[in-house]
Amino acid sequence: MGELGEFGLIALVNAGRTQTPGVLLGPGDDAAVIAAPEGRFVVTTDMLVQDRHFRTDWSSAHDIGRKAIAQNAADVVAMGAVPSAFVVGLGCPSDTPVEFVRELADGLWAEAGRAGASIAGGDMVRSPLLIISVTACGDPRRAPIRLSGARPGDVVAVAGKLGWSGAGLAVLSAATADAPDAPSADLLTEFAEVVAVHRVPQPPYEAVLELPDTVEITALTDVSDGLLADLGHIAESSGVAIDLTAAALAVPELEAAGKALGVNPLDWILAGGEDHAFAATFTDSTDLPEGWVRVGRVRAGSGVTVDGAPRSGLGGWESFA
Amino acid sequence: MGELGEFGLIALVNAGRTQTPGVLLGPGDDAAVIAAPEGRFVVTTDMLVQDRHFRTDWSSAHDIGRKAIAQNAADVVAMGAVPSAFVVGLGCPSDTPVEFVRELADGLWAEAGRAGASIAGGDMVRSPLLIISVTACGDPRRAPIRLSGARPGDVVAVAGKLGWSGAGLAVLSAATADAPDAPSADLLTEFAEVVAVHRVPQPPYEAVLELPDTVEITALTDVSDGLLADLGHIAESSGVAIDLTAAALAVPELEAAGKALGVNPLDWILAGGEDHAFAATFTDSTDLPEGWVRVGRVRAGSGVTVDGAPRSGLGGWESFA
Repeated sequence: MGELGEFGLIALVNAGRTQTPGVLLGPGDDAAVIAAPEGRFVVTTDMLVQDRHFRTDWSSAHDIGRKAIAQNAADVVAMGAVPSAFVVGLGCPSDTPVEFVRELADGLWAEAGRAGASIAGGDMVRSPLLIISVTACGDPRRAPIRLSGARPGDVVAVAGKLGWSGAGLAVLSAATADAPDAPSADLLTEFAEVVAVHRVPQPPYEAVLELPDTVEITALTDVSDGLLADLGHIAESSGVAIDLTAAALAVPELEAAGKALGVNPLDWILAGGEDHAFAATFTDSTDLPEGWVRVGRVRAGSGVTVDGAPRSGLGGWESFA
Repeated sequence: MGELGEFGLIALVNAGRTQTPGVLLGPGDDAAVIAAPEGRFVVTTDMLVQDRHFRTDWSSAHDIGRKAIAQNAADVVAMGAVPSAFVVGLGCPSDTPVEFVRELADGLWAEAGRAGASIAGGDMVRSPLLIISVTACGDPRRAPIRLSGARPGDVVAVAGKLGWSGAGLAVLSAATADAPDAPSADLLTEFAEVVAVHRVPQPPYEAVLELPDTVEITALTDVSDGLLADLGHIAESSGVAIDLTAAALAVPELEAAGKALGVNPLDWILAGGEDHAFAATFTDSTDLPEGWVRVGRVRAGSGVTVDGAPRSGLGGWESFA
């Protein structure tokens, strides 16, 4: 990378890319210019740190790029907004292979495309370890869907894969713990599906973006820290209690991995983290739209319970824990 | 920091802050919502890495916070846009003192206020070293001022302090080299002014934001990589040559530091980096507005010269050099 230099690298990662129409001015000037037809936009940012949020021996550069965009796009969509542009700060060691950076950029662009937007700008700097900072902007085509709108009597529903990412992380950890230099091929093969979801979450953007206007959604969030933690944010912001039904949350595909690793799959479902699914509350009279599964009920009170009882010992992801 | 946890820290850095009116929804939801009254916005991002872009033994946490915002706000203003909101990703070791984070946040907010905006959201993660990623958004109240509009015959002018930051960095380096554990107090005292500018650049936002509508500005950039390098971007984008007049660039305040360190101050002025001044081209018939100093002329051709000759050996800042 040192040979190409910053401007050579910027040219390389932008070569052959096509900006989406909402990007009125892309890379190459002091800042990008993005359309905001509604007179407002949403913005969110996440930082991913090597060996904390991803491992280069567990994920390809392409996977890491996709995940970095997916988790930010999910936050935009969780406001009821359509992603309009991403900017990406990339810190990497000067001996990083150029091919790694190219694949990472391809992954960023691939997921940006899935989310309907493009990479409008960025910054590349030298750093002792890989750091990826993504900022996502979006176009709120309807009133922003906040955390604070849930009301007692509302239905709680989820869209997307809960627990798969946590199960995949557990499989990767177990496979590596057995043989750090040569992860157990058996485990990785047997549970390839959950490992793939951990490497590249696939937020069901369309479950939110294609909601009919008639659907009365009252609160919405991205599930990133674990379902209990993220519904806890809705409960706290809305001043309500949420009770989940364990049977409705069951994911048959996680049973075998749970048995193999001695984990109750419900732990992954409730607190696994990095699901990048969506959790929402809807008025009771609304028919749940396609892609949404009813998993609980909003009540008066506070906190989140499962079958009426608190779940202890499941914290969800916490950055400085 | 580990004791407070991510959510405690987020509460701490946001306590007592007042969002500016353009921030329609601030921290606490999946994303912030920002006003874009013109139906479009500008966005830019920069990543600052500890010991590469700042040193905690050379700058206070407050100074580092101010600089991180200033360099991004300058990029927004260099498009002719008014900063409307910042989002900040912060990576830091779990043993970082809470007081350091509080002072850093105070610095971020102080400079955001100088730029007329507030910190609308962010992300805090654990990282082996300090990483600050700032994304700045802005409201283009006029047509974006691009790099590509300079035409032969235009006047080249600058606003802000050129070379001061480079001189300050040289003083800090020399003072530390003499006595790494106890920097030479003499040098730091004698040249305190340039050291202060290196620690906290003060982009003259008003020189751009208060330009009368009648002023015909044709191209504009933030001077961050060094005047030659940044004017080089205007020359290349516009397909023109730029010739600077050395006498017009002279900065008497840098003479003494140049003599003390054996450096030609013109080197700092042309290639020092981190000035966060502004360089622009104006039509010849326009009266230069207040705060702007004429330093050269746009001609047909390519490249940037000083008194008609190329300057070699001055590269400006390059991330992977």
